[in-house]
Amino acid sequence: MSAKGYAIHDSEKWSDFALIDFKLKTAEPYDVDIAITNCGVCASDIHTITNGWGNFPDHPVVPGHEIVGKVTKVGSSVTEFKVGDIVGVGAQVSACFDCKACSNDNEQYCQHGVDTYNSKFPNGDIAQGGYSTAIRTHERFVFPIPDGLEPRLAASSLCAGLTMYSPLVRNAKKGDKVGIVGIGGLGHYGIMFAKALGYETYAFTHSERKIEDIKKLGADHIINTNDPKFGEKHAMELDLIVSTVDVAHGLPLSDLLPVLNIHGRFVSVGLPDHPLDGIQPQAFAGNGSFFGSSHIGSKKEAVAMLQLMADKKISPWIEEMPMSQAKEAVERLKKNDIRYRFVLSNDIEQ
Amino acid sequence: MSAKGYAIHDSEKWSDFALIDFKLKTAEPYDVDIAITNCGVCASDIHTITNGWGNFPDHPVVPGHEIVGKVTKVGSSVTEFKVGDIVGVGAQVSACFDCKACSNDNEQYCQHGVDTYNSKFPNGDIAQGGYSTAIRTHERFVFPIPDGLEPRLAASSLCAGLTMYSPLVRNAKKGDKVGIVGIGGLGHYGIMFAKALGYETYAFTHSERKIEDIKKLGADHIINTNDPKFGEKHAMELDLIVSTVDVAHGLPLSDLLPVLNIHGRFVSVGLPDHPLDGIQPQAFAGNGSFFGSSHIGSKKEAVAMLQLMADKKISPWIEEMPMSQAKEAVERLKKNDIRYRFVLSNDIEQ
Repeated sequence: MSAKGYAIHDSEKWSDFALIDFKLKTAEPYDVDIAITNCGVCASDIHTITNGWGNFPDHPVVPGHEIVGKVTKVGSSVTEFKVGDIVGVGAQVSACFDCKACSNDNEQYCQHGVDTYNSKFPNGDIAQGGYSTAIRTHERFVFPIPDGLEPRLAASSLCAGLTMYSPLVRNAKKGDKVGIVGIGGLGHYGIMFAKALGYETYAFTHSERKIEDIKKLGADHIINTNDPKFGEKHAMELDLIVSTVDVAHGLPLSDLLPVLNIHGRFVSVGLPDHPLDGIQPQAFAGNGSFFGSSHIGSKKEAVAMLQLMADKKISPWIEEMPMSQAKEAVERLKKNDIRYRFVLSNDIEQ
Repeated sequence: MSAKGYAIHDSEKWSDFALIDFKLKTAEPYDVDIAITNCGVCASDIHTITNGWGNFPDHPVVPGHEIVGKVTKVGSSVTEFKVGDIVGVGAQVSACFDCKACSNDNEQYCQHGVDTYNSKFPNGDIAQGGYSTAIRTHERFVFPIPDGLEPRLAASSLCAGLTMYSPLVRNAKKGDKVGIVGIGGLGHYGIMFAKALGYETYAFTHSERKIEDIKKLGADHIINTNDPKFGEKHAMELDLIVSTVDVAHGLPLSDLLPVLNIHGRFVSVGLPDHPLDGIQPQAFAGNGSFFGSSHIGSKKEAVAMLQLMADKKISPWIEEMPMSQAKEAVERLKKNDIRYRFVLSNDIEQ
């Protein structure tokens, strides 16, 4: 079966989308076919199509991994879904289903995971993303969208939201003091989720113009990083920081670590194109802090996150746009001209 | 009261010890006076006297922070010790006694901590170390040496041992798979402690000549880092790595991280003179791993470690030498010519 999607052929012409026909993966018994209604526009899409991560593939790329839609067909072994269900797909579409990671709700760390686009299945089938009419994937990587959550509002949570939700629930508990660095597509989810999870929520910003937004998003405290004494004022205060910014060339890690409590953790979900500046292990010794990263989230976490959004009426701040205007969406996102996420609605003629 | 000690006056002449008289800190009610019998020689001593950390002070330095001796006097408020007790002092001699860190057995992370030497007390008194006849310090930083552990064998554990023991007990539990990188003064304690704590113990080495030692120290597995495929062979296997080496210019961090299990931790207790090479946050995303450091250990941990050594008959591999030969000890340690720790015995005439 084939689908239609907006593809980039060349990273030099990274916003010149062309509508192509492409083949969905070979159908297997656990596969679910989904007619896509919406797809969020993620910074990963930009990194990929501009070749910022250096892995632009040898085939046209249909980006998009914040997908919602309606089930149109299920394989013979599918148990969780039926035709007509409203579902989502995030940044992963396959795994080995067998390793330690797959067996303990860490399938996002499976070493044989397949990304939603710019990736290949073990049999060589090309995985294409959600700026398109349809996707086919194993039910393990399909998430039910709960009643009470509009699909168009769920879309961008499936990468941006989950990328924040997973480190928040894995590294903090109710009552902890948790900081979010970088108030954008990911960070605005971070503030809303941290607050909804019962954390005392701090937002770091150097941008005066974001302060009103941060308050509306519900942060308890705002740390202005233009204040050269912010580190001293908040020394050893936070249990966890989740950062979406470039800790190499933006706000440097060495300024942020002293704000962590003893053995506090700094999780960088921002994956910059550049290496960290030359930080010394000593920078971590004063409070025994840790630096790490995190990779999206598990299905179990996606389901819990979507339910939290439905229960607490959490709505991302999105700007909707027809899929045919993907060029404008990626160009504006690259200029950071969006508060805080584009969601494309499907206008491709079948 | 004054004491005598071997001091370095100039980091350019970093092994030219001269015997000096120096004043002990002003006596306070919680202070314990100790006649020093032994002092270990720590790599920190070398970093300090060679000015490798760039903080050689404006006064002569008597190094040494792995001190054992006999109590000669106690202040009026001391409750834990009496004259004649055999005790130890490690790398810290004071703190604020009041902050969150001091209140929850994390006094080593107190922001007002005073190091054993190359440091000053709040009143301006100079702290001098254990290559000397005596030390005076608050009982909080005095550790009882248990029966069944020879004081000369306890000495080097008070920095080297504790620096390994604390991250081992804070970041792993019985049955976990734990790696030690760098088999030297710290690392040889790491192997023995990891094993004694019931961890499945891995030693990383690139040195064929250390393999026999590693077996004698009790490691369950040896990972030869000369094998370019060691990362693949042991992918996602270990829960914790404690490293004593220069992860900037020695065995690089990016080669070691893939050996960690999901959310595994890499604790660098080696504090190299150089920054880390330009590692990207991406290097941590594949397994959601963490990098951090650690600062010595708490008194509670020191007491537990010394008891473990007594109970399990853990003996560090030491070479004893009279304190008058401190020059030879630091010169040989700088060349890494010791398996695995020098312990000086006091031969200063009172």
